[in-house]
Amino acid sequence: MITSEHQSIEIPRSKNPRFVIIGGGFGGIEMAKMLKNKKAQVVLLDRHNYHTFIPLLYQVATAGLEPDSIAEPLRKIIENTKDFYFRMAKVDRINPEEKTVSTAVGDLPYDYLIIATGSKTNYFGNESIYKKAFPLKQITQALDLRSQILQNFEKAVQTKNEDVRQSLMNFVVVGGGPTGVEVSGALGELKKQVLPQDYPELDFDMMNIYLIEGLPRLLSGMSDYAGNKALEYLKRFGVTVQLEKMVKAYDGTEVVFSDDTKLKTQTLIWAAGVKGNIIDGLDEKSIERDRLIVDEYNRVEGYDDIFAVGDIASMKTAKFPKGHPMLAPVAIQQGKHLGENIVRITENKPLKPFTYLDKGYMATVGRKKAVVDLPGGLKLGGFLAWITWMFIHIFYLIGFRNKLVVFSNWVWNYFTYDRGIRLIIRPFDIEKKSQEIND
Amino acid sequence: MITSEHQSIEIPRSKNPRFVIIGGGFGGIEMAKMLKNKKAQVVLLDRHNYHTFIPLLYQVATAGLEPDSIAEPLRKIIENTKDFYFRMAKVDRINPEEKTVSTAVGDLPYDYLIIATGSKTNYFGNESIYKKAFPLKQITQALDLRSQILQNFEKAVQTKNEDVRQSLMNFVVVGGGPTGVEVSGALGELKKQVLPQDYPELDFDMMNIYLIEGLPRLLSGMSDYAGNKALEYLKRFGVTVQLEKMVKAYDGTEVVFSDDTKLKTQTLIWAAGVKGNIIDGLDEKSIERDRLIVDEYNRVEGYDDIFAVGDIASMKTAKFPKGHPMLAPVAIQQGKHLGENIVRITENKPLKPFTYLDKGYMATVGRKKAVVDLPGGLKLGGFLAWITWMFIHIFYLIGFRNKLVVFSNWVWNYFTYDRGIRLIIRPFDIEKKSQEIND
Repeated sequence: MITSEHQSIEIPRSKNPRFVIIGGGFGGIEMAKMLKNKKAQVVLLDRHNYHTFIPLLYQVATAGLEPDSIAEPLRKIIENTKDFYFRMAKVDRINPEEKTVSTAVGDLPYDYLIIATGSKTNYFGNESIYKKAFPLKQITQALDLRSQILQNFEKAVQTKNEDVRQSLMNFVVVGGGPTGVEVSGALGELKKQVLPQDYPELDFDMMNIYLIEGLPRLLSGMSDYAGNKALEYLKRFGVTVQLEKMVKAYDGTEVVFSDDTKLKTQTLIWAAGVKGNIIDGLDEKSIERDRLIVDEYNRVEGYDDIFAVGDIASMKTAKFPKGHPMLAPVAIQQGKHLGENIVRITENKPLKPFTYLDKGYMATVGRKKAVVDLPGGLKLGGFLAWITWMFIHIFYLIGFRNKLVVFSNWVWNYFTYDRGIRLIIRPFDIEKKSQEIND
Repeated sequence: MITSEHQSIEIPRSKNPRFVIIGGGFGGIEMAKMLKNKKAQVVLLDRHNYHTFIPLLYQVATAGLEPDSIAEPLRKIIENTKDFYFRMAKVDRINPEEKTVSTAVGDLPYDYLIIATGSKTNYFGNESIYKKAFPLKQITQALDLRSQILQNFEKAVQTKNEDVRQSLMNFVVVGGGPTGVEVSGALGELKKQVLPQDYPELDFDMMNIYLIEGLPRLLSGMSDYAGNKALEYLKRFGVTVQLEKMVKAYDGTEVVFSDDTKLKTQTLIWAAGVKGNIIDGLDEKSIERDRLIVDEYNRVEGYDDIFAVGDIASMKTAKFPKGHPMLAPVAIQQGKHLGENIVRITENKPLKPFTYLDKGYMATVGRKKAVVDLPGGLKLGGFLAWITWMFIHIFYLIGFRNKLVVFSNWVWNYFTYDRGIRLIIRPFDIEKKSQEIND
């Protein structure tokens, strides 16, 4: 009503060159912080008005944290900064010839463009899964999943059909990476320590959590030790891990596996993979396996004035011949580094190449259990790893208020075995699932 | 899929008589608490799985509190209680002849029925307002309004059309009762102390907040002192109060007033009234002005085995010839009292009549400003009233965790002038407004 395709986003030009950042994820906001009050006009674009701390989304989905505490308003991050603008807008197209980006609210010219669009859920082209599975990449998706999980148990209490009850209490998690392991472990905690109090009428031996992984091990990005420990911990939380198995189809009530076995479930959680969130308009040659090829300065191949950081960027190095892993620490370091390089651009200094400082990998499995691979080969498991995991996540969470709220929630959940956030606030309807499902 | 109209809700009969409570609001949960582990089988029905602390909804709508902190899972309230059941179900019909209630998930027989369905937004039959205005009676509605308010400012930054920008920054609140006063005051706080930091590009002199009231004064349920003070405080927060004025129509962009003046606004907040949430099936003679006529034992006229408490119940007394005011304290006291009477029923003792203990009335206007009428004629205004208001609301909030979270949020908001919760998490679309709008 108030916008048209041919409108432009009007932001007054300053004496500084304009840097347009697409995406307020880990890479985007690190860069934004580096560029505060520098000789650069910065315009940050995001389709949401907040930054999402994706590593804790699974705790929102499993009623452990409120969504507000893992998100930070983007305007707050850039408050009191000169020559810095935020626009809530989804970029539909990059026009490198005209040096503009196109959004639903108009076009915006740039001098330099930084693509920090991250990744989106990869359904590997499987339409049935795309339509019916629950992804876990956005806050709205985490809220949908939370409502679905809780609503399943309300329905399980009400039905007199044993088969239906079983399908409501079967949860299938696909993907044995950190997200899949963490969400399965959190479901295991709900089964063992939280839900039986709420639903004394239900037999929680009926609650089955299946974690499905195509490879012969869990956490393939981490050490064998971590993979084995995670498997052991998940078993203790009552999770059935099935390796070397994949999902072929899912119609919302029945999942068909690669070995043609079937299972009735109302809830398939899809954590099997992500792919770069490519925006149309760049030369095909700059794209490889849904990521943008960048040089050691995060410059996109074929363009002098376009950069990319984080999951969307593929920087091939000796250690990472296929590009860095699609993980938050890479995005954070690249965002910060590119921010410094942009300052160098504004000062006409030569750019410095990016090198990734490996700070290790970690995944939590549930109450008091996590696995950590530290750089240099040290490996942690169990309680110590869990404490490390919590400390690191609080440290990297954006916003002092969020740190306080998340920490308080964890202390509360730890001592009370309670989950305060178990409200069904989105009347769930599988057909009306968030429009943003694949964005 | 798993339910049909002719199904029944199966709950095993115990040796105790069955009391079915419809509604987990203030009245319903007070009664539930009184009936824990008594000689009664209790079945609590609610269409949501949580209790909503409605007096603080306006703070959710204005980004001051997260929704989770003003709601409490109903199953948690009745945890570890014998012969007590919860079912998430909306009651569509009462069948007094068969002594059953009908829900979407089946019929449920009762021995005694307690109707605690509260009230719903009263649009006074105005279809245009019903379709386009924002009500404030449910958590989903508060979240919709929060998204709308924030989205207005994102759009105001983007538009180049001054008229559109003005209509985005005009907020019309209809109804000068506590909800209207409180939401206007909260909008005034956002205007003065919160939003200008987020939107340095906007001129906040353009943000107009109109509070429209049909009567010649505000807070007609309270003292003249309170009404005048509220008016004075609202002016200080930049709210334009217009008395003896009503709204005739609203098409989503323009509001038409009773004096045929017009105003462009994208946001009309409807707090002009509520009416009893009547369920079909009872004799028309027991209903008067959308409330159920009850005797001094909260027994519905014409029925020995049906009771009603709270907003839905109209108990005519010498002091309240039209029934008690539709306020939380009445519901709380009636719920508690009826709970005690039900225990008397199970013990074959005579019932005791209800008398309302007036604990006073209060409304907050914004930072450090509130009005309180205490019983006995004492009236408070300003900071002291504000402290009193906060203390009382924390005290009555259900759940220790919620008390902690709300208190912490208020301390945070007070000292930082910040609102942590300003996320647009429901992509707002006026056409897809919550289906529950009129329930």
